[in-house]
Amino acid sequence: MRELEVNCELVERIIHGFLCDELGKVGLPRAVVGLSGGLDSSVAMALAVRVLGPENCMAVMMPYRTSSPESLADAQLMAQRLGTESMVIDITPQVDAYFDRFPDANERRRGNKMARERMTVLYDLSEAWKALVVGASNKTEILLGYTTLWGDMACAVMPLGDLYKTQVRQLARHLDIPERILAKPPSADLWVGQTDEGELGFTYADADRVLYRLVDLRWSRQRCLDEGFVEDLVDDVLEKMRRSQFKRCLPLICKLSTRTVGRDFRYPRDWGY
Amino acid sequence: MRELEVNCELVERIIHGFLCDELGKVGLPRAVVGLSGGLDSSVAMALAVRVLGPENCMAVMMPYRTSSPESLADAQLMAQRLGTESMVIDITPQVDAYFDRFPDANERRRGNKMARERMTVLYDLSEAWKALVVGASNKTEILLGYTTLWGDMACAVMPLGDLYKTQVRQLARHLDIPERILAKPPSADLWVGQTDEGELGFTYADADRVLYRLVDLRWSRQRCLDEGFVEDLVDDVLEKMRRSQFKRCLPLICKLSTRTVGRDFRYPRDWGY
Repeated sequence: MRELEVNCELVERIIHGFLCDELGKVGLPRAVVGLSGGLDSSVAMALAVRVLGPENCMAVMMPYRTSSPESLADAQLMAQRLGTESMVIDITPQVDAYFDRFPDANERRRGNKMARERMTVLYDLSEAWKALVVGASNKTEILLGYTTLWGDMACAVMPLGDLYKTQVRQLARHLDIPERILAKPPSADLWVGQTDEGELGFTYADADRVLYRLVDLRWSRQRCLDEGFVEDLVDDVLEKMRRSQFKRCLPLICKLSTRTVGRDFRYPRDWGY
Repeated sequence: MRELEVNCELVERIIHGFLCDELGKVGLPRAVVGLSGGLDSSVAMALAVRVLGPENCMAVMMPYRTSSPESLADAQLMAQRLGTESMVIDITPQVDAYFDRFPDANERRRGNKMARERMTVLYDLSEAWKALVVGASNKTEILLGYTTLWGDMACAVMPLGDLYKTQVRQLARHLDIPERILAKPPSADLWVGQTDEGELGFTYADADRVLYRLVDLRWSRQRCLDEGFVEDLVDDVLEKMRRSQFKRCLPLICKLSTRTVGRDFRYPRDWGY
Protein backbone atom coordinates (compact mmCIF):
# COMPACT_ATOMS: atom_id res chain seq x y z
CA MET A 1 0.00 0.00 0.00
CA ARG A 2 2.55 2.49 -1.18
CA GLU A 3 -0.24 4.98 -1.80
CA LEU A 4 -0.99 5.33 1.91
CA GLU A 5 2.58 5.66 3.01
CA VAL A 6 3.39 8.87 4.80
CA ASN A 7 6.63 10.63 5.50
CA CYS A 8 6.54 10.27 9.26
CA GLU A 9 9.24 12.87 9.88
CA LEU A 10 7.32 15.45 7.93
CA VAL A 11 3.96 14.51 9.43
CA GLU A 12 5.42 14.81 12.90
CA ARG A 13 6.83 18.21 12.07
CA ILE A 14 3.51 19.48 10.73
CA ILE A 15 1.59 18.20 13.75
CA HIS A 16 4.21 19.78 15.98
CA GLY A 17 3.57 23.16 14.43
CA PHE A 18 -0.18 22.64 14.53
CA LEU A 19 -0.27 21.85 18.25
CA CYS A 20 2.15 24.65 19.13
CA ASP A 21 0.06 27.14 17.20
CA GLU A 22 -3.39 26.11 18.25
CA LEU A 23 -2.67 25.59 21.90
CA GLY A 24 -0.22 28.43 22.17
CA LYS A 25 -2.35 31.14 20.68
CA VAL A 26 -5.21 30.59 23.09
CA GLY A 27 -2.75 30.77 25.94
CA LEU A 28 -3.31 27.21 27.09
CA PRO A 29 -0.19 25.27 26.11
CA ARG A 30 -1.34 22.23 28.06
CA ALA A 31 -3.16 19.15 26.89
CA VAL A 32 -5.57 16.68 28.40
CA VAL A 33 -5.79 13.39 26.50
CA GLY A 34 -8.07 10.45 27.14
CA LEU A 35 -5.74 7.46 27.06
CA SER A 36 -7.50 4.20 26.34
CA GLY A 37 -4.52 1.93 25.85
CA GLY A 38 -5.27 1.78 22.15
CA LEU A 39 -3.19 2.93 19.24
CA ASP A 40 -4.76 6.29 18.38
CA SER A 41 -4.78 7.79 21.83
CA SER A 42 -1.24 6.53 22.45
CA VAL A 43 -0.06 8.31 19.32
CA ALA A 44 -1.96 11.49 20.16
CA MET A 45 -0.48 11.47 23.65
CA ALA A 46 3.05 10.81 22.41
CA LEU A 47 2.78 13.73 20.02
CA ALA A 48 1.39 16.06 22.68
CA VAL A 49 4.25 15.13 24.99
CA ARG A 50 6.86 15.75 22.32
CA VAL A 51 5.42 19.17 21.58
CA LEU A 52 4.43 20.42 25.01
CA GLY A 53 6.63 18.42 27.36
CA PRO A 54 5.43 15.74 29.76
CA GLU A 55 4.79 18.26 32.52
CA ASN A 56 2.17 19.96 30.36
CA CYS A 57 0.24 16.84 29.43
CA MET A 58 -2.27 14.91 31.47
CA ALA A 59 -3.26 11.38 30.55
CA VAL A 60 -6.74 10.45 31.71
CA MET A 61 -7.78 6.82 31.85
CA MET A 62 -11.53 6.34 32.12
CA PRO A 63 -12.35 2.66 32.44
CA TYR A 64 -15.85 1.31 32.85
CA ARG A 65 -16.41 -1.90 34.77
CA THR A 66 -16.59 -3.90 31.54
CA SER A 67 -13.39 -2.39 30.12
CA SER A 68 -10.54 -4.79 29.75
CA PRO A 69 -7.92 -4.50 32.52
CA GLU A 70 -5.24 -4.91 29.87
CA SER A 71 -6.36 -1.68 28.23
CA LEU A 72 -5.85 0.19 31.47
CA ALA A 73 -2.48 -1.49 31.99
CA ASP A 74 -1.41 -0.49 28.47
CA ALA A 75 -2.53 3.08 29.03
CA GLN A 76 -0.61 3.24 32.27
CA LEU A 77 2.44 1.82 30.55
CA MET A 78 2.22 4.59 27.94
CA ALA A 79 1.80 7.33 30.54
CA GLN A 80 4.74 6.00 32.49
CA ARG A 81 6.96 5.75 29.43
CA LEU A 82 6.11 9.30 28.48
CA GLY A 83 6.52 10.60 32.01
CA THR A 84 3.23 12.51 32.05
CA GLU A 85 0.87 13.08 34.89
CA SER A 86 -1.99 10.67 34.78
CA MET A 87 -5.30 10.14 36.45
CA VAL A 88 -7.72 7.22 36.51
CA ILE A 89 -11.38 8.16 36.64
CA ASP A 90 -13.68 5.18 36.83
CA ILE A 91 -16.84 6.17 34.98
CA THR A 92 -18.85 3.22 36.30
CA PRO A 93 -20.66 5.06 39.13
CA GLN A 94 -21.91 7.86 36.85
CA VAL A 95 -22.92 5.61 33.99
CA ASP A 96 -24.59 3.01 36.18
CA ALA A 97 -26.42 5.67 38.18
CA TYR A 98 -28.09 6.67 34.92
CA PHE A 99 -28.85 3.19 33.59
CA ASP A 100 -30.36 2.11 36.91
CA ARG A 101 -33.43 3.75 35.40
CA PHE A 102 -33.11 1.85 32.13
CA PRO A 103 -31.89 -1.66 32.97
CA ASP A 104 -32.89 -2.91 29.52
CA ALA A 105 -30.81 -0.38 27.59
CA ASN A 106 -28.82 -2.09 24.85
CA GLU A 107 -25.06 -2.09 24.29
CA ARG A 108 -25.29 0.69 21.77
CA ARG A 109 -26.97 3.11 24.17
CA ARG A 110 -24.53 2.15 26.91
CA GLY A 111 -21.54 2.57 24.65
CA ASN A 112 -22.63 6.01 23.51
CA LYS A 113 -23.35 7.14 27.06
CA MET A 114 -19.87 6.01 28.08
CA ALA A 115 -18.19 7.82 25.21
CA ARG A 116 -20.07 11.01 26.10
CA GLU A 117 -19.35 10.63 29.80
CA ARG A 118 -15.65 10.44 28.94
CA MET A 119 -15.95 13.67 26.98
CA THR A 120 -17.55 15.44 29.94
CA VAL A 121 -14.76 14.21 32.22
CA LEU A 122 -12.03 15.36 29.84
CA TYR A 123 -13.67 18.78 29.49
CA ASP A 124 -14.08 19.11 33.22
CA LEU A 125 -10.43 18.27 33.82
CA SER A 126 -9.34 20.58 31.03
CA GLU A 127 -11.18 23.38 32.78
CA ALA A 128 -9.73 22.53 36.18
CA TRP A 129 -6.25 22.18 34.75
CA LYS A 130 -6.40 25.06 32.24
CA ALA A 131 -5.68 22.86 29.28
CA LEU A 132 -7.20 21.94 25.93
CA VAL A 133 -8.70 18.58 25.12
CA VAL A 134 -6.64 16.90 22.39
CA GLY A 135 -8.70 14.31 20.52
CA ALA A 136 -7.43 11.08 19.02
CA SER A 137 -9.89 10.47 16.17
CA ASN A 138 -8.40 9.40 12.85
CA LYS A 139 -9.64 10.08 9.33
CA THR A 140 -10.96 6.56 8.81
CA GLU A 141 -13.29 6.61 11.77
CA ILE A 142 -14.33 10.20 11.16
CA LEU A 143 -15.27 9.42 7.55
CA LEU A 144 -17.03 6.17 8.43
CA GLY A 145 -18.82 7.83 11.35
CA TYR A 146 -17.46 5.11 13.58
CA THR A 147 -17.59 7.52 16.51
CA THR A 148 -20.01 8.85 19.07
CA LEU A 149 -21.44 12.25 18.24
CA TRP A 150 -20.49 14.73 21.00
CA GLY A 151 -18.46 11.89 22.50
CA ASP A 152 -15.00 10.91 21.29
CA MET A 153 -15.34 13.37 18.38
CA ALA A 154 -15.80 16.33 20.75
CA CYS A 155 -12.48 17.97 21.53
CA ALA A 156 -10.54 21.13 20.78
CA VAL A 157 -8.05 19.84 18.22
CA MET A 158 -7.51 16.64 16.33
CA PRO A 159 -3.87 16.11 15.40
CA LEU A 160 -4.63 12.75 13.74
CA GLY A 161 -7.94 13.66 12.06
CA ASP A 162 -6.40 13.76 8.60
CA LEU A 163 -4.52 10.45 8.81
CA TYR A 164 -6.08 7.13 7.91
CA LYS A 165 -5.82 4.33 10.44
CA THR A 166 -3.11 2.71 8.32
CA GLN A 167 -1.13 5.94 8.48
CA VAL A 168 -1.58 6.38 12.24
CA ARG A 169 -0.05 2.93 12.54
CA GLN A 170 3.01 4.06 10.56
CA LEU A 171 3.35 7.10 12.75
CA ALA A 172 3.03 4.89 15.83
CA ARG A 173 6.07 2.87 14.76
CA HIS A 174 7.99 6.04 14.09
CA LEU A 175 7.10 7.27 17.60
CA ASP A 176 8.15 3.99 19.24
CA ILE A 177 4.75 3.07 20.57
CA PRO A 178 5.15 -0.25 22.45
CA GLU A 179 4.75 -3.32 20.32
CA ARG A 180 1.93 -4.72 22.47
CA ILE A 181 -0.19 -1.65 21.72
CA LEU A 182 0.63 -1.91 18.02
CA ALA A 183 -0.18 -5.60 17.95
CA LYS A 184 -3.65 -5.74 19.45
CA PRO A 185 -6.77 -5.48 17.34
CA PRO A 186 -8.38 -2.00 17.39
CA SER A 187 -11.35 -1.90 19.74
CA ALA A 188 -13.60 0.68 21.36
CA ASP A 189 -13.43 -1.65 24.39
CA LEU A 190 -17.09 -1.08 25.24
CA TRP A 191 -17.77 -4.72 25.81
CA VAL A 192 -15.71 -7.91 25.98
CA GLY A 193 -14.62 -9.18 22.60
CA GLN A 194 -15.62 -6.03 20.70
CA THR A 195 -13.30 -5.21 17.80
CA ASP A 196 -13.67 -2.33 15.37
CA GLU A 197 -13.18 -4.53 12.34
CA GLY A 198 -15.71 -7.07 13.58
CA GLU A 199 -18.30 -4.35 14.05
CA LEU A 200 -17.55 -2.56 10.80
CA GLY A 201 -17.62 -5.71 8.74
CA PHE A 202 -14.38 -4.99 6.89
CA THR A 203 -10.73 -4.38 7.74
CA TYR A 204 -9.17 -0.97 8.17
CA ALA A 205 -6.67 -1.84 5.45
CA ASP A 206 -9.49 -2.39 2.95
CA ALA A 207 -11.53 0.59 4.13
CA ASP A 208 -8.53 2.90 3.88
CA ARG A 209 -7.78 1.90 0.29
CA VAL A 210 -11.36 2.63 -0.72
CA LEU A 211 -11.65 5.83 1.29
CA TYR A 212 -8.40 7.13 -0.11
CA ARG A 213 -9.76 6.69 -3.64
CA LEU A 214 -13.23 8.06 -2.97
CA VAL A 215 -12.15 11.00 -0.85
CA ASP A 216 -8.60 12.00 -1.68
CA LEU A 217 -8.47 10.94 -5.34
CA ARG A 218 -12.17 11.78 -5.88
CA TRP A 219 -12.81 8.54 -7.70
CA SER A 220 -16.40 7.62 -8.44
CA ARG A 221 -18.03 4.42 -7.18
CA GLN A 222 -17.88 3.07 -10.73
CA ARG A 223 -14.20 3.70 -11.10
CA CYS A 224 -13.53 1.81 -7.86
CA LEU A 225 -15.47 -1.15 -9.27
CA ASP A 226 -13.71 -0.90 -12.63
CA GLU A 227 -10.37 -1.03 -10.89
CA GLY A 228 -11.36 -4.23 -9.16
CA PHE A 229 -12.65 -3.26 -5.75
CA VAL A 230 -15.38 -5.49 -4.38
CA GLU A 231 -18.81 -3.95 -4.85
CA ASP A 232 -20.08 -4.76 -1.36
CA LEU A 233 -17.08 -3.13 0.23
CA VAL A 234 -17.30 0.04 -1.85
CA ASP A 235 -21.03 0.39 -1.26
CA ASP A 236 -20.71 -0.27 2.43
CA VAL A 237 -17.99 2.34 2.82
CA LEU A 238 -19.94 4.86 0.74
CA GLU A 239 -23.13 4.26 2.69
CA LYS A 240 -21.41 4.59 6.07
CA MET A 241 -19.72 7.79 4.92
CA ARG A 242 -22.93 9.36 3.67
CA ARG A 243 -25.14 8.33 6.55
CA SER A 244 -22.72 9.75 9.09
CA GLN A 245 -22.37 13.20 7.56
CA PHE A 246 -24.47 14.63 10.40
CA LYS A 247 -21.67 13.70 12.79
CA ARG A 248 -19.33 15.96 10.86
CA CYS A 249 -21.63 18.99 11.05
CA LEU A 250 -22.61 21.44 13.71
CA PRO A 251 -26.29 21.57 14.68
CA LEU A 252 -28.33 23.07 11.88
CA ILE A 253 -29.85 26.49 12.55
CA CYS A 254 -33.11 27.51 10.93
CA LYS A 255 -32.23 30.53 8.79
CA LEU A 256 -34.32 33.58 9.74
CA SER A 257 -32.03 36.57 9.36
CA THR A 258 -29.46 37.99 7.00
CA ARG A 259 -26.58 36.58 9.02
CA THR A 260 -26.86 33.16 10.51
CA VAL A 261 -24.23 31.40 12.61
CA GLY A 262 -22.57 28.65 10.58
CA ARG A 263 -23.80 29.99 7.24
CA ASP A 264 -22.96 33.64 6.65
CA PHE A 265 -21.42 34.20 10.05
CA ARG A 266 -18.25 32.14 9.92
CA TYR A 267 -14.90 32.86 11.44
CA PRO A 268 -11.91 30.69 12.19
CA ARG A 269 -11.63 29.17 15.60
CA ASP A 270 -8.92 31.65 16.57
CA TRP A 271 -10.86 34.76 15.52
CA GLY A 272 -10.61 36.21 19.01
CA TYR A 273 -6.87 35.68 19.38
CA MET B 1 -37.05 48.33 19.42
CA ARG B 2 -38.80 48.26 16.11
CA GLU B 3 -35.64 46.95 14.47
CA LEU B 4 -35.83 43.64 16.31
CA GLU B 5 -39.51 43.09 15.69
CA VAL B 6 -40.30 39.90 13.82
CA ASN B 7 -43.33 38.80 11.89
CA CYS B 8 -44.28 35.94 14.18
CA GLU B 9 -46.67 34.33 11.69
CA LEU B 10 -43.97 34.18 9.08
CA VAL B 11 -41.30 33.02 11.51
CA GLU B 12 -43.54 30.24 12.70
CA ARG B 13 -44.21 29.18 9.12
CA ILE B 14 -40.52 29.08 8.26
CA ILE B 15 -39.64 27.09 11.39
CA HIS B 16 -42.52 24.76 10.58
CA GLY B 17 -41.03 23.99 7.19
CA PHE B 18 -37.55 23.68 8.65
CA LEU B 19 -38.54 21.12 11.28
CA CYS B 20 -40.70 19.14 8.83
CA ASP B 21 -37.86 19.02 6.34
CA GLU B 22 -34.97 18.27 8.63
CA LEU B 23 -36.70 15.68 10.78
CA GLY B 24 -38.73 14.20 7.97
CA LYS B 25 -35.95 13.56 5.54
CA VAL B 26 -33.89 11.54 7.98
CA GLY B 27 -36.96 9.46 8.70
CA LEU B 28 -37.22 10.48 12.34
CA PRO B 29 -40.21 12.83 12.59
CA ARG B 30 -40.04 12.81 16.36
CA ALA B 31 -38.42 15.24 18.75
CA VAL B 32 -36.87 15.08 22.17
CA VAL B 33 -36.59 18.46 23.89
CA GLY B 34 -35.01 19.30 27.21
CA LEU B 35 -37.63 21.38 28.98
CA SER B 36 -36.20 23.57 31.71
CA GLY B 37 -39.23 25.66 32.52
CA GLY B 38 -37.58 28.67 30.93
CA LEU B 39 -38.64 30.67 27.90
CA ASP B 40 -36.47 29.24 25.15
CA SER B 41 -37.13 25.57 25.73
CA SER B 42 -40.84 26.27 26.15
CA VAL B 43 -40.91 27.97 22.77
CA ALA B 44 -38.87 25.22 21.12
CA MET B 45 -41.20 22.61 22.59
CA ALA B 46 -44.34 24.48 21.56
CA LEU B 47 -43.05 24.72 17.99
CA ALA B 48 -42.10 21.04 17.86
CA VAL B 49 -45.56 20.09 19.07
CA ARG B 50 -47.27 22.26 16.48
CA VAL B 51 -45.20 20.74 13.71
CA LEU B 52 -45.01 17.09 14.74
CA GLY B 53 -48.00 16.64 17.00
CA PRO B 54 -47.85 16.06 20.76
CA GLU B 55 -47.62 12.29 20.32
CA ASN B 56 -44.30 12.72 18.50
CA CYS B 57 -42.66 14.96 21.06
CA MET B 58 -41.06 14.05 24.34
CA ALA B 59 -40.36 16.67 26.99
CA VAL B 60 -37.48 15.77 29.26
CA MET B 61 -37.02 17.58 32.55
CA MET B 62 -33.57 17.12 34.05
CA PRO B 63 -33.40 18.82 37.42
CA TYR B 64 -30.35 18.76 39.66
CA ARG B 65 -30.76 18.96 43.40
CA THR B 66 -30.04 22.69 43.39
CA SER B 67 -32.49 23.44 40.58
CA SER B 68 -35.46 25.49 41.61
CA PRO B 69 -38.64 23.45 42.14
CA GLU B 70 -40.58 26.21 40.37
CA SER B 71 -38.62 25.54 37.19
CA LEU B 72 -39.70 21.92 37.23
CA ALA B 73 -43.29 22.92 37.98
CA ASP B 74 -43.25 25.37 35.05
CA ALA B 75 -41.82 22.73 32.74
CA GLN B 76 -44.49 20.29 33.80
CA LEU B 77 -47.15 22.92 33.25
CA MET B 78 -45.87 23.42 29.70
CA ALA B 79 -45.76 19.70 28.93
CA GLN B 80 -49.27 19.29 30.27
CA ARG B 81 -50.63 22.21 28.27
CA LEU B 82 -49.05 20.84 25.13
CA GLY B 83 -50.22 17.31 25.84
CA THR B 84 -46.81 15.74 25.16
CA GLU B 85 -45.22 12.77 26.80
CA SER B 86 -42.79 13.82 29.47
CA MET B 87 -40.14 12.31 31.62
CA VAL B 88 -38.25 13.58 34.64
CA ILE B 89 -34.65 12.44 34.90
CA ASP B 90 -32.93 13.65 38.03
CA ILE B 91 -29.29 14.16 37.09
CA THR B 92 -28.13 14.47 40.71
CA PRO B 93 -26.89 10.88 41.15
CA GLN B 94 -24.72 10.96 38.03
CA VAL B 95 -23.31 14.42 38.62
CA ASP B 96 -22.65 13.89 42.31
CA ALA B 97 -21.06 10.50 41.66
CA TYR B 98 -18.47 12.35 39.60
CA PHE B 99 -17.89 15.29 41.92
CA ASP B 100 -17.45 13.00 44.93
CA ARG B 101 -13.89 12.88 43.63
CA PHE B 102 -13.61 16.64 43.36
CA PRO B 103 -15.49 18.12 46.31
CA ASP B 104 -13.82 21.49 45.79
CA ALA B 105 -14.93 21.92 42.18
CA ASN B 106 -16.36 25.38 41.62
CA GLU B 107 -19.81 26.36 40.35
CA ARG B 108 -18.54 26.78 36.84
CA ARG B 109 -17.23 23.23 36.57
CA ARG B 110 -20.39 21.87 38.13
CA GLY B 111 -22.61 23.90 35.83
CA ASN B 112 -20.77 22.72 32.73
CA LYS B 113 -20.86 19.10 33.86
CA MET B 114 -24.62 19.39 34.39
CA ALA B 115 -25.21 20.93 30.98
CA ARG B 116 -23.20 18.14 29.37
CA GLU B 117 -24.91 15.44 31.41
CA ARG B 118 -28.25 16.77 30.15
CA MET B 119 -26.99 16.48 26.58
CA THR B 120 -26.00 12.86 27.12
CA VAL B 121 -29.43 12.09 28.58
CA LEU B 122 -31.25 13.75 25.68
CA TYR B 123 -29.13 11.86 23.16
CA ASP B 124 -29.67 8.59 24.94
CA LEU B 125 -33.42 9.09 24.99
CA SER B 126 -33.43 10.20 21.37
CA GLU B 127 -31.74 6.92 20.50
CA ALA B 128 -34.14 4.84 22.58
CA TRP B 129 -37.15 6.71 21.20
CA LYS B 130 -35.92 7.06 17.58
CA ALA B 131 -36.14 10.83 17.63
CA LEU B 132 -33.94 13.85 17.02
CA VAL B 133 -32.75 16.23 19.71
CA VAL B 134 -34.22 19.67 19.11
CA GLY B 135 -32.14 22.37 20.78
CA ALA B 136 -33.39 25.60 22.29
CA SER B 137 -30.39 27.90 21.93
CA ASN B 138 -31.08 31.41 20.67
CA LYS B 139 -28.88 33.70 18.61
CA THR B 140 -27.97 35.95 21.52
CA GLU B 141 -26.53 33.17 23.65
CA ILE B 142 -24.88 31.49 20.68
CA LEU B 143 -23.14 34.74 19.68
CA LEU B 144 -22.14 35.63 23.23
CA GLY B 145 -20.97 32.07 23.86
CA TYR B 146 -23.22 31.98 26.92
CA THR B 147 -23.53 28.24 26.54
CA THR B 148 -21.70 25.07 27.42
CA LEU B 149 -19.67 23.60 24.59
CA TRP B 150 -20.95 20.08 23.80
CA GLY B 151 -23.69 20.75 26.31
CA ASP B 152 -26.81 22.80 25.60
CA MET B 153 -25.37 23.70 22.18
CA ALA B 154 -25.14 20.05 21.13
CA CYS B 155 -28.28 18.95 19.32
CA ALA B 156 -29.48 18.02 15.85
CA VAL B 157 -31.37 21.18 14.90
CA MET B 158 -31.84 24.63 16.39
CA PRO B 159 -35.14 26.19 15.37
CA LEU B 160 -34.42 29.34 17.44
CA GLY B 161 -30.73 29.70 16.66
CA ASP B 162 -31.26 32.68 14.38
CA LEU B 163 -33.57 34.65 16.69
CA TYR B 164 -32.31 37.05 19.31
CA LYS B 165 -33.62 36.60 22.83
CA THR B 166 -35.88 39.64 22.35
CA GLN B 167 -37.37 37.95 19.29
CA VAL B 168 -37.85 34.59 21.01
CA ARG B 169 -39.88 36.53 23.57
CA GLN B 170 -42.13 37.94 20.83
CA LEU B 171 -42.60 34.46 19.41
CA ALA B 172 -43.42 33.18 22.90
CA ARG B 173 -46.30 35.65 23.20
CA HIS B 174 -47.52 34.65 19.77
CA LEU B 175 -47.44 30.98 20.83
CA ASP B 176 -49.32 31.68 24.09
CA ILE B 177 -46.54 30.63 26.40
CA PRO B 178 -47.86 31.04 29.96
CA GLU B 179 -47.34 34.47 31.47
CA ARG B 180 -45.42 33.11 34.45
CA ILE B 181 -42.79 31.68 32.11
CA LEU B 182 -42.63 34.95 30.18
CA ALA B 183 -42.37 36.99 33.35
CA LYS B 184 -39.47 35.36 35.14
CA PRO B 185 -35.89 36.49 34.65
CA PRO B 186 -33.89 34.24 32.30
CA SER B 187 -31.66 31.86 34.22
CA ALA B 188 -29.58 28.76 33.56
CA ASP B 189 -30.86 27.64 37.01
CA LEU B 190 -27.53 26.12 37.90
CA TRP B 191 -27.52 27.61 41.39
CA VAL B 192 -29.96 29.61 43.51
CA GLY B 193 -30.27 33.23 42.47
CA GLN B 194 -28.40 32.83 39.18
CA THR B 195 -29.71 35.03 36.38
CA ASP B 196 -28.34 35.32 32.87
CA GLU B 197 -28.30 39.10 32.95
CA GLY B 198 -26.58 39.16 36.33
CA GLU B 199 -23.86 36.88 35.03
CA LEU B 200 -23.47 38.59 31.69
CA GLY B 201 -23.27 42.07 33.18
CA PHE B 202 -25.80 43.58 30.77
CA THR B 203 -29.41 43.05 29.75
CA TYR B 204 -30.54 40.98 26.81
CA ALA B 205 -32.33 44.04 25.44
CA ASP B 206 -29.07 45.98 25.34
CA ALA B 207 -27.02 43.05 24.06
CA ASP B 208 -29.50 42.35 21.28
CA ARG B 209 -29.42 45.95 20.01
CA VAL B 210 -25.62 45.86 19.84
CA LEU B 211 -25.42 42.34 18.37
CA TYR B 212 -27.99 43.21 15.72
CA ARG B 213 -25.83 46.13 14.61
CA LEU B 214 -22.49 44.32 14.76
CA VAL B 215 -23.66 41.09 13.18
CA ASP B 216 -26.72 41.70 11.01
CA LEU B 217 -26.01 45.27 9.92
CA ARG B 218 -22.23 44.71 9.93
CA TRP B 219 -21.58 47.94 11.79
CA SER B 220 -18.07 48.56 13.08
CA ARG B 221 -17.33 49.10 16.75
CA GLN B 222 -16.68 52.75 15.97
CA ARG B 223 -20.02 53.24 14.29
CA CYS B 224 -21.79 51.79 17.34
CA LEU B 225 -19.97 54.32 19.51
CA ASP B 226 -20.73 57.17 17.10
CA GLU B 227 -24.40 56.30 17.26
CA GLY B 228 -24.37 56.59 21.01
CA PHE B 229 -23.88 53.08 22.32
CA VAL B 230 -21.95 52.85 25.57
CA GLU B 231 -18.34 51.86 24.97
CA ASP B 232 -18.15 49.32 27.80
CA LEU B 233 -21.22 47.53 26.51
CA VAL B 234 -20.01 47.38 22.91
CA ASP B 235 -16.57 46.18 23.91
CA ASP B 236 -17.94 43.62 26.30
CA VAL B 237 -20.27 42.20 23.65
CA LEU B 238 -17.51 42.18 21.04
CA GLU B 239 -15.09 40.50 23.41
CA LYS B 240 -17.57 37.82 24.42
CA MET B 241 -18.44 37.17 20.78
CA ARG B 242 -14.83 36.83 19.70
CA ARG B 243 -13.62 34.78 22.64
CA SER B 244 -16.40 32.24 22.15
CA GLN B 245 -15.83 31.57 18.48
CA PHE B 246 -14.38 28.16 19.35
CA LYS B 247 -17.82 27.16 20.63
CA ARG B 248 -19.21 27.75 17.16
CA CYS B 249 -16.64 25.57 15.42
CA LEU B 250 -16.06 21.88 15.08
CA PRO B 251 -12.79 20.51 16.43
CA LEU B 252 -9.89 21.64 14.31
CA ILE B 253 -8.14 18.96 12.28
CA CYS B 254 -4.44 19.24 11.46
CA LYS B 255 -4.30 19.37 7.66
CA LEU B 256 -2.12 16.60 6.24
CA SER B 257 -3.79 15.52 3.00
CA THR B 258 -5.44 17.01 -0.06
CA ARG B 259 -8.93 16.55 1.37
CA THR B 260 -9.52 17.24 5.02
CA VAL B 261 -12.84 16.89 6.85
CA GLY B 262 -14.30 20.32 7.59
CA ARG B 263 -12.04 22.11 5.05
CA ASP B 264 -12.17 20.63 1.58
CA PHE B 265 -14.45 17.76 2.48
CA ARG B 266 -17.73 19.50 3.26
CA TYR B 267 -21.23 18.32 2.59
CA PRO B 268 -24.59 19.36 3.96
CA ARG B 269 -26.00 17.49 6.93
CA ASP B 270 -28.49 15.69 4.70
CA TRP B 271 -25.93 14.51 2.15
CA GLY B 272 -26.87 10.89 2.69
CA TYR B 273 -30.64 11.38 2.34
